[in-house]
Amino acid sequence: MKRISRLMVKKVAVLGAGMMGSAITVPLADSGNYVNLWGTEYDVPILEHIRKTSMHPSLKANLPKQVNVFYPEELDKALYDREVVFIAVTSDAAKTILKRALPYMGNARKVIILSKGIHVENDKIMSLSQVVSEGIKSMERDIDVISVGGPCIAEELVKRVPTLGVYASYNLNSALDCKKVFETDYYKIIATDDVIGVELCAALKNSYAIAIGWSYGLSDAGDYKTVYNLESLLLTQAIKEMRVIVKSFGGNDETVIGPAGLGDLNVTIKKVEGRNVNFGRLLGKGMSFEEAIKCMHVSGKTTIEGVPTAIKIYEFLTRSEHLSQILDELILLKALTNVLKGKISVKEALSEILEDISKD
Amino acid sequence: MKRISRLMVKKVAVLGAGMMGSAITVPLADSGNYVNLWGTEYDVPILEHIRKTSMHPSLKANLPKQVNVFYPEELDKALYDREVVFIAVTSDAAKTILKRALPYMGNARKVIILSKGIHVENDKIMSLSQVVSEGIKSMERDIDVISVGGPCIAEELVKRVPTLGVYASYNLNSALDCKKVFETDYYKIIATDDVIGVELCAALKNSYAIAIGWSYGLSDAGDYKTVYNLESLLLTQAIKEMRVIVKSFGGNDETVIGPAGLGDLNVTIKKVEGRNVNFGRLLGKGMSFEEAIKCMHVSGKTTIEGVPTAIKIYEFLTRSEHLSQILDELILLKALTNVLKGKISVKEALSEILEDISKD
Repeated sequence: MKRISRLMVKKVAVLGAGMMGSAITVPLADSGNYVNLWGTEYDVPILEHIRKTSMHPSLKANLPKQVNVFYPEELDKALYDREVVFIAVTSDAAKTILKRALPYMGNARKVIILSKGIHVENDKIMSLSQVVSEGIKSMERDIDVISVGGPCIAEELVKRVPTLGVYASYNLNSALDCKKVFETDYYKIIATDDVIGVELCAALKNSYAIAIGWSYGLSDAGDYKTVYNLESLLLTQAIKEMRVIVKSFGGNDETVIGPAGLGDLNVTIKKVEGRNVNFGRLLGKGMSFEEAIKCMHVSGKTTIEGVPTAIKIYEFLTRSEHLSQILDELILLKALTNVLKGKISVKEALSEILEDISKD
Repeated sequence: MKRISRLMVKKVAVLGAGMMGSAITVPLADSGNYVNLWGTEYDVPILEHIRKTSMHPSLKANLPKQVNVFYPEELDKALYDREVVFIAVTSDAAKTILKRALPYMGNARKVIILSKGIHVENDKIMSLSQVVSEGIKSMERDIDVISVGGPCIAEELVKRVPTLGVYASYNLNSALDCKKVFETDYYKIIATDDVIGVELCAALKNSYAIAIGWSYGLSDAGDYKTVYNLESLLLTQAIKEMRVIVKSFGGNDETVIGPAGLGDLNVTIKKVEGRNVNFGRLLGKGMSFEEAIKCMHVSGKTTIEGVPTAIKIYEFLTRSEHLSQILDELILLKALTNVLKGKISVKEALSEILEDISKD
């Protein structure tokens, strides 16, 4: 374990005791910091389980003994004196939780967002970090906001499988500070100021994972034994298009080739229970959009983040005067959007993609 | 199926009736060309099987009826009148077979190399296409040489699973001609003049597949259930280093992010029976280099192409006055070479990589 100076040790709070919020407490505690883990009203059964056994019921792994667990009504205690606050609730709850938390965050200098998500309005795309930043500013507080990307399956992080987190902040020094205090020998941190690139990657990878999932569905349907050639074609096309999109929004296209883009997309398509890739798989198997949604709902998975993200970004680009020119290059995103809107089947989509892909 | 003008139809010979040589006859025949498939002395049992049943015994799939099969002693007949000759024998046999074939290649305008391999001499690195080109020139013949990259598992190609071939030639028009006559609705062709980039990708992906294989070995050893975080970290680092190497040799680093680089590396690590990734897997499981080699030999796999490629390129770079500066960036290649030379264990290699990877 890396030795760090006691002066660098931080008092940290993690808001959200789901898989990711709980898993991140492992490197945070291992790097010597004081960690409070607070759960929402939805997390109560998890919190009780952890208090009784120190094991997280979904992660099926023990959290470090040094982690203090707090119930929903103990938000003030969980945040008391905390310099760094991680937000790890679902992306649609992030704003509400932040509002509840801010009054108790007198000592907070950094908010680190593990939740992912983008919000599209008519005239602009807002990332979760922007939503959070605006919330903080409206309360007249001066806190650095940092978004985290990179390949990070919670079930693996809690077991200390080596990986990388990409910490993005407009204030690069703030991200570098995180590197100093939160790195361990298995959890490395890369600091960047490409906030847009990291956040777009985190959102887009869900959409492209749906399209890559099609290939597994074709295999399931018995059309082919393996489909690695097609998977690879879709993967490289996804990376190509993510670079075009990130660049057009002012991000750095190199981010897409790194851990936050390719790295995160790769774990997203690999994770057996990943909902985006499995949704795509059902479509590839020949199900209609409605049938696939129904099937996901039956297994309790009601949110397929990649669906609204793909449609919103595609429609946003269509409406945009100066960005619509990149649509010609977004062969896969276009086909995906048409499948998600029920306009074409996956097989038709694949024919179109193959026809277009080798034109340039 | 794409309709092509009869004027464009080519008379093609494929030399080598192994998996890849046989599989490529499928799109070649489907795109309407006349195809002769010739086998070497080692291929005789395969040829007999195809003649009797039209099925390739290892591919377990039928070859198109239009494909004419030729025995080793029929090389002259197989090549008679052929305008395009595909070389699909093992890379170390390519030069010899070409020498045997050239006297009968009076009509040949193109040689297309499906075999992969690089040859390192003290002062330079030669790709297989360079070796073949020199052979052609020494016989005072004027034939375009084209190298093929991209994600292309033969077992899938023969079943018409959609994919892309990247055809690279210093004469771009020659590669574009191939696109015109060999493309089908499932086999697309991208033409490029980045010969160095495509050939280095084809060679390097074998070496990096060994290192990515380590992660699966750690999982096999029971250390972790899944290791997708680590796999992703190694994959993105591999792509990063392949870009550095390709660029330093005068190739285009964009090639690495496309089908010939990322696409081919992805199928290489996915293919269950892939020898490079499986060799890496054995090392990751804790076997020594010798134990892993022995284990591969038992299953009849005596050539692990990525091993000599990694060592030769690393040593070449070490000796090179103006290229050795890039070694600092080649964290993974360095660790891999040290593992292959028995200097460090995979676990030590991973520690070193993790230590170095987040420094920049």
